[in-house]
Amino acid sequence: MINKVLNILKESKDYISGEDMAQNLSLSRTAVWKYINKLKKNGYDIVSVTGKGYKLIENDILNENEITYPHIYFKEEMTSTNNVAKELASKGAQEGLVVVCDKQSEGKGRLGRSWEGDNGKTLCFSVLLRPKLPPHKVSKITIMAGIAVLEALREITGCPLFIKWPNDIVYEGKKVCGILTEMSAEVDNTEYVVLGVGINVNTDIFPKNIKEIATSLYILTGEKYKRANVLDTALKYIKKYYDIFIDSELKNLKEVYNSYCINKDKAVETMGKSTIYGIALGINEEGSLEIKTEDGKIVTVMSGEVSLRGDGTY
Amino acid sequence: MINKVLNILKESKDYISGEDMAQNLSLSRTAVWKYINKLKKNGYDIVSVTGKGYKLIENDILNENEITYPHIYFKEEMTSTNNVAKELASKGAQEGLVVVCDKQSEGKGRLGRSWEGDNGKTLCFSVLLRPKLPPHKVSKITIMAGIAVLEALREITGCPLFIKWPNDIVYEGKKVCGILTEMSAEVDNTEYVVLGVGINVNTDIFPKNIKEIATSLYILTGEKYKRANVLDTALKYIKKYYDIFIDSELKNLKEVYNSYCINKDKAVETMGKSTIYGIALGINEEGSLEIKTEDGKIVTVMSGEVSLRGDGTY
Repeated sequence: MINKVLNILKESKDYISGEDMAQNLSLSRTAVWKYINKLKKNGYDIVSVTGKGYKLIENDILNENEITYPHIYFKEEMTSTNNVAKELASKGAQEGLVVVCDKQSEGKGRLGRSWEGDNGKTLCFSVLLRPKLPPHKVSKITIMAGIAVLEALREITGCPLFIKWPNDIVYEGKKVCGILTEMSAEVDNTEYVVLGVGINVNTDIFPKNIKEIATSLYILTGEKYKRANVLDTALKYIKKYYDIFIDSELKNLKEVYNSYCINKDKAVETMGKSTIYGIALGINEEGSLEIKTEDGKIVTVMSGEVSLRGDGTY
Repeated sequence: MINKVLNILKESKDYISGEDMAQNLSLSRTAVWKYINKLKKNGYDIVSVTGKGYKLIENDILNENEITYPHIYFKEEMTSTNNVAKELASKGAQEGLVVVCDKQSEGKGRLGRSWEGDNGKTLCFSVLLRPKLPPHKVSKITIMAGIAVLEALREITGCPLFIKWPNDIVYEGKKVCGILTEMSAEVDNTEYVVLGVGINVNTDIFPKNIKEIATSLYILTGEKYKRANVLDTALKYIKKYYDIFIDSELKNLKEVYNSYCINKDKAVETMGKSTIYGIALGINEEGSLEIKTEDGKIVTVMSGEVSLRGDGTY
């Protein structure tokens, strides 16, 4: 019944009186009032004006009711969606499960770094996959995921976002989204892959230390987005590209990726045991980046062995 | 005090009377009798003969007191030592932890296959490692472990055992020991590796379905072994070779491995998506097996992509 109350509020462009709602739903006015209070408690921003009634101020609530994808594990707060997804995976959860929360208390970045999402404004979710692949091929899934999330965010914002190899999504040198892929595997065989995605959706201000390197969909477009809708769109594209990947790995995705890769044809510098300077040519079918060095040699670097400095715009 | 009683029994080559023991340890004879019963309950085979006293029949008890390695997690029964080690690792257990049990209820083989150890006669243990490696290099650890366990079992038995690529330990085509390496990793970075080792120690009879392909140290030598001693020796070699591996990966281990590899210079046939026939040349520094095919080409196969049929003796 509370969802019916919510739906009436969503469909009303203007204020709606408690009496109209009560009549519509065959409820007492007191019951309507109780549901309204419950919705407020759940985070919905509902204003009431004497003589006019109630109005839902559109805001970005993230909960199970707002997400259309059916195979969801949602909790308001988690340590991190990747941690929870890994735990569920080790207990046998099926491929396709998506773990989502509203707030992460221990967000994780790549290489064990902590990752600070702006709680309640960042969209954090993890997709559980069980591909039949040896673990050395899992880095290709990260490439696939980069394409999928990029296309989702281009559709949502209309902005010409790009991918910084291997899979940061950037705009003018600032990061909008990061992807953290984790796996449990034997040497021969991958038990599961957890694809963790963190998107800066409605963040308005970043802390000083990351202001120069981070941005959000809101800062880019001036619009606020419902994270539940962003999630639905992202999952639509992840499904599309995962199906292509399972069919032919990166064979049909290499060129797509390279067309989105901000590093292609630009100067890059690797950060690893030894530094390589050169012009990035794009990825090969293994997902490795090919770099042409000054002396004309072509060097291949695997995701996992090096990072890139800058995004090629420096 | 129970350990003192046990030690006296161990040190006595012949029967020792309850009175002598009581005097030695300043205990009452009733107390000695209680400890003896406790030891029997713990699995020690102690015979008592009126007028002579007690005698410990040497047998293969596996528990914490019998193992000298200090960093042990022991339980009499576990689902599998790999499962328990992975759980402890995800909770932050340190590198070097060794998980051991007397009986596995859900033993695991490679590629998710079940593995039936002969409970109480098989030695099952898992070593937790936290190498700073990208996951595609973890298969090299499996090669290192093969060398280490092989040398341990050669020292213990004096038998010329060999390694079937990548890491089964075999004698005349029959398997004595299997190694199951599992990991948790990001694309870039390995969180932990669990090296699971299962050695057929005192098994006397194998079930019909594996009789032709499995053997044990007991069947090979006619001697029974204390699994606690086998463990200590195996850990000594694993430590030795892991140190070498961390220093220079397989650079100094490739030739050692090839000298132990039963497949080298023999006909092999791969089992994978496509079959390759040829002569195995040995591993390269990546741990991959190089195979010379009939038309003189050299093909490299990674552990993880193919298995070999037979051990080269067919």
